[in-house]
Amino acid sequence: MYEGPIQDLIEEFGRLPGVGPKSAQRLAFHVLTMDAADAERLARALVAVKEKVRFCVRCFNVSEQDECRICRDARRDPSLLCVVEEPRDLMAIEKTGEFRGRYHVLGGAISPIDGVGPDQLRVAELFARLGEEDITEVVLATNPNSEGEATASYLARTLKAMEVAVSRIASGLPVGGDLEYADEVTLGRAFAGRRAL
Amino acid sequence: MYEGPIQDLIEEFGRLPGVGPKSAQRLAFHVLTMDAADAERLARALVAVKEKVRFCVRCFNVSEQDECRICRDARRDPSLLCVVEEPRDLMAIEKTGEFRGRYHVLGGAISPIDGVGPDQLRVAELFARLGEEDITEVVLATNPNSEGEATASYLARTLKAMEVAVSRIASGLPVGGDLEYADEVTLGRAFAGRRAL
Repeated sequence: MYEGPIQDLIEEFGRLPGVGPKSAQRLAFHVLTMDAADAERLARALVAVKEKVRFCVRCFNVSEQDECRICRDARRDPSLLCVVEEPRDLMAIEKTGEFRGRYHVLGGAISPIDGVGPDQLRVAELFARLGEEDITEVVLATNPNSEGEATASYLARTLKAMEVAVSRIASGLPVGGDLEYADEVTLGRAFAGRRAL
Repeated sequence: MYEGPIQDLIEEFGRLPGVGPKSAQRLAFHVLTMDAADAERLARALVAVKEKVRFCVRCFNVSEQDECRICRDARRDPSLLCVVEEPRDLMAIEKTGEFRGRYHVLGGAISPIDGVGPDQLRVAELFARLGEEDITEVVLATNPNSEGEATASYLARTLKAMEVAVSRIASGLPVGGDLEYADEVTLGRAFAGRRAL
């Protein structure tokens, strides 16, 4: 509907996930009013990500070098391994400061509907690491939804054969949440996972 | 929190309107999984918009040439002028196919709180056009919110001195809407603007 470049930009924005036609239009018109330098910085950042960012050869976190910052960090405990679905999950855990081991990023979760099985994830790479590195505990930190749970139980079953402790992050009520607004599955988990005080 | 380029891209996305930190992160990780060609196309579209798109010298619509497609179109009725706030409003009206005149884009609406008065809008340019062009009717199509209404009533008052018919687009119930869910102001407008059948 618009002329040339502005329509192109609306269409390109519209291809991004979660950006509908109205948002794409709003973003494109915002770019029109931005400083040219700001628009160029965004354009350069886009190209730089594709050129410079790759995946850590060990854990598959995003990285600028062969190994990511966490795998290179000698202060991290190499005997503890936390398995997550995506790099953003890794970042969320890093922000808590609760985990001092290393990670393994699967690149998704098992989802037969979407045609994703263990072969589409970095599961073989996980087992290779368990053979090569001195890992004593694996924490399964996939999402607490059906795909994440399926992935965790698949990994837990398969890891039983190996000499490694396997744990799963706790499900329960979110801190600061209200018991009365919790869904029954979460509340059920909170009961099932109750701890003696 | 992330390394280099990915963090840069998250920050750049986060500067866009309506893109919060979580969305910016989601978009950046999406770019990471996009084809490099697609990311480059978005980057190029960004730069092209800043380089090639400018504002029509007559109506201030977005345009690739001095005058926009609509102002150049000899089939449009030059005696009818529709005043809108932004190019996207113009596009919304174009999609209806109900208006065959030309436009004037103000570049916003009067909003004393934001320090926007008539001098910050293309109001002087509007009056210059009324002096130069053979315009017989001005349709005020600013948004039906407080800023748009203030702008319309300011323009209506000021245009009274000139020999031109001034009209305002109708407010009322949206087509397909339910009377019982309409807010009282809209419903009041629908009554005030009732038409004899």
